[in-house]
Amino acid sequence: MPEKQPGRTKVSRREVLKMAGVGGLGLLVGSVGVGEVLTRTGMLSSKTASVVTPRQADQHIPFYGDYQAGIVTPSQNFVCFAAFDVTSAKLSDIAEMFRAWTEAAAAMTEGQLIGTVNDKTTMPPSDTGEAAGLTPSKLTITFGVGPSMFDQRFGLAAKRPAALADLPRFAGENLRPEWCGGDIGVQVCADDMQVAFHAVRNLARIARGTAVLRWTQEGFQRTSAASSTAGDTPRNLLGFKDGTGNPDVNDNKLMNDVVWAQAADGAGWMNNGSYMVVRRIRMRIEIWDRTKLGEQENTFGRYRENGAPIGAKNEFDTLKLEEKDASGAFVIPANSHVRLAHGDGSMKILRRSYSYSSGLDSKTGQLDAGLLFIAYQRDPRSQFVPMQQRLAKADALNEYISHLGSALFACFPGVKRGGFIGEQLFS
Amino acid sequence: MPEKQPGRTKVSRREVLKMAGVGGLGLLVGSVGVGEVLTRTGMLSSKTASVVTPRQADQHIPFYGDYQAGIVTPSQNFVCFAAFDVTSAKLSDIAEMFRAWTEAAAAMTEGQLIGTVNDKTTMPPSDTGEAAGLTPSKLTITFGVGPSMFDQRFGLAAKRPAALADLPRFAGENLRPEWCGGDIGVQVCADDMQVAFHAVRNLARIARGTAVLRWTQEGFQRTSAASSTAGDTPRNLLGFKDGTGNPDVNDNKLMNDVVWAQAADGAGWMNNGSYMVVRRIRMRIEIWDRTKLGEQENTFGRYRENGAPIGAKNEFDTLKLEEKDASGAFVIPANSHVRLAHGDGSMKILRRSYSYSSGLDSKTGQLDAGLLFIAYQRDPRSQFVPMQQRLAKADALNEYISHLGSALFACFPGVKRGGFIGEQLFS
Repeated sequence: MPEKQPGRTKVSRREVLKMAGVGGLGLLVGSVGVGEVLTRTGMLSSKTASVVTPRQADQHIPFYGDYQAGIVTPSQNFVCFAAFDVTSAKLSDIAEMFRAWTEAAAAMTEGQLIGTVNDKTTMPPSDTGEAAGLTPSKLTITFGVGPSMFDQRFGLAAKRPAALADLPRFAGENLRPEWCGGDIGVQVCADDMQVAFHAVRNLARIARGTAVLRWTQEGFQRTSAASSTAGDTPRNLLGFKDGTGNPDVNDNKLMNDVVWAQAADGAGWMNNGSYMVVRRIRMRIEIWDRTKLGEQENTFGRYRENGAPIGAKNEFDTLKLEEKDASGAFVIPANSHVRLAHGDGSMKILRRSYSYSSGLDSKTGQLDAGLLFIAYQRDPRSQFVPMQQRLAKADALNEYISHLGSALFACFPGVKRGGFIGEQLFS
Repeated sequence: MPEKQPGRTKVSRREVLKMAGVGGLGLLVGSVGVGEVLTRTGMLSSKTASVVTPRQADQHIPFYGDYQAGIVTPSQNFVCFAAFDVTSAKLSDIAEMFRAWTEAAAAMTEGQLIGTVNDKTTMPPSDTGEAAGLTPSKLTITFGVGPSMFDQRFGLAAKRPAALADLPRFAGENLRPEWCGGDIGVQVCADDMQVAFHAVRNLARIARGTAVLRWTQEGFQRTSAASSTAGDTPRNLLGFKDGTGNPDVNDNKLMNDVVWAQAADGAGWMNNGSYMVVRRIRMRIEIWDRTKLGEQENTFGRYRENGAPIGAKNEFDTLKLEEKDASGAFVIPANSHVRLAHGDGSMKILRRSYSYSSGLDSKTGQLDAGLLFIAYQRDPRSQFVPMQQRLAKADALNEYISHLGSALFACFPGVKRGGFIGEQLFS
């Protein structure tokens, strides 16, 4: 039976199943602690778990804290990315939605059902149910707002951070409106795809009347290496390791330099937040697969087998950027991806990308597969933008990829229990 | 170092990584045992693993056998389904492709790289690399041919099994050509999405010049319940358990009745094969989510929480089809999904479905999510077809779903090492 606290009955998703062997009738009837915020929708109430098994605790990443989870959190296996557009004209509606989202997100990351599910006759179930019985699965839900949120609609223009400047147009990009932009961006990651899907779907449901989904994209990483070789850099769908050069998330000073917006940056509401760039990058797999391995390696500037930079031995060896071969050419080619991404080495970003495979592109008959590139940084103007400008201009990889989607979001700082995500901006 | 046998050097995907700390140069140079079949493509050779760690053995499902794997195999976590159309006019090309596919499929299910990857200068790598370092992940690859394979092109019309009759049009279906049909159907399942993707991509690559992808669809099941509650029936995206009524795959007599084509059925080349029906079923999630739980349960005829039939206690309890309430109505409603699917109980199918989530439908702005329904049977004319006709006519669930894709394939019997999938039909 669930532990009881005054005024609250707390039930985890796994417990519900144990209790459910009685035909499902009367389940959870009598639970109290209905949250005022969520009941605005007429279908949600609040409940938080106190009974967490050791296995669940392992798989629970706290939602509340100084920073949002899902940024320096080690990558989970799956992402469901969702961009929303606000349909209400009232800022108070947005604030109310974020309050409801905060409460629901905290519940879901703890592996709980949202609200009460018991009244069969007067309202729809408050949780859509497909995650019942599943663990928290390291679920993280990371919220941000796009540049369009600061247009004339909500009176927020004066609060727009300078760092949230619209991304410039990059050479060669082939953006399609159906995979671009959004007033709000939500990165949902988990070790269970069904748990991630459940979160996006229920956030969309809570948003009804205030915001609608604009675009979504699912993504994955390899799972079968995770238990025995945790920490191995995953491979992208071109077969190469991706993420080798990421900064160390355990280095707090470095994270303050690279990832977290600082008080000195202006836009005080973003202090301890971070800027997320999302690019939906199609890979031209059929062309890549006809390319010689040596040429593939020269394109990346790394060896495929172990990810070592060309001319070096191991994955994490320093790039020998000055080394030349007998003919006087750079060993790591001048137009290789790793050299251009590295630049002078002064600027880093924190990449958190996933592979995607979305069937065939009906326009081309080719696989719609590639990389959902996600990167966090303190200021895109000095980090992602110049890096991408170098790549767009000269990267040998451009022959094999196409940027089809793009979005930019200012991800809020974290929130303490009782507060709500975005409170610094919206209230 | 890999174990050597006369004439063969065998290297698993995980071993390759251990060997790869030398800059990737010379890797696998000197391996022998080049398969004649695969080298037809100019890029493939044969190598099979002899070094399999205990962990890999756990995750290895044999490709060779009396029956194809992936049918009575317990469901893995992910599917990549692929339908191909043949572009060559020569039956011998198709046979050759199946020979190459057989060898590649056997290698991939054993967690090996396909072919040699060493020559950097004269040809593309023989394996696309993104599964390097990953385990076999219970990979299964199940091949079948559709009705269109028996048209005038290849002279196979006389060999078309009666059971491979075109599916009739069902009431209310809303089929889109981009998710229908195919000369060849391949169900690829694995516990690692990246391993499944890798298999489809490399099969498509091997097919070049003989067949092209027609449509593909990725799918998933929940993963986070698997280790502690293995055997729990997974939930679909409507939140209900799906697959409860499946026949017992360990009952050989039952499988001969329900799943495996028998000698007495005619079409001798299909003896020990099975017929696969695939339906891409969109769920109208936004409408479902506004429906009361009681109505949802009446729609399925089961309780959501534990999957028990209405009026019963536990998931696997018998359906009380005759029981009526005080008003004289059936307790399990007359138009409920479970009642209509059950019919008179004389006909079963083996379901092996996955959930899918494929972003937003750009035509409707709603989630393109639902069920990739896959079912195996001995004869669709007496199993899937009458069941689906009952459902199409009256199922209460029809309000919340839409069949957008459909395909039917005759899946071959298994093959012994040295033979090739489809040899009974093609040679």
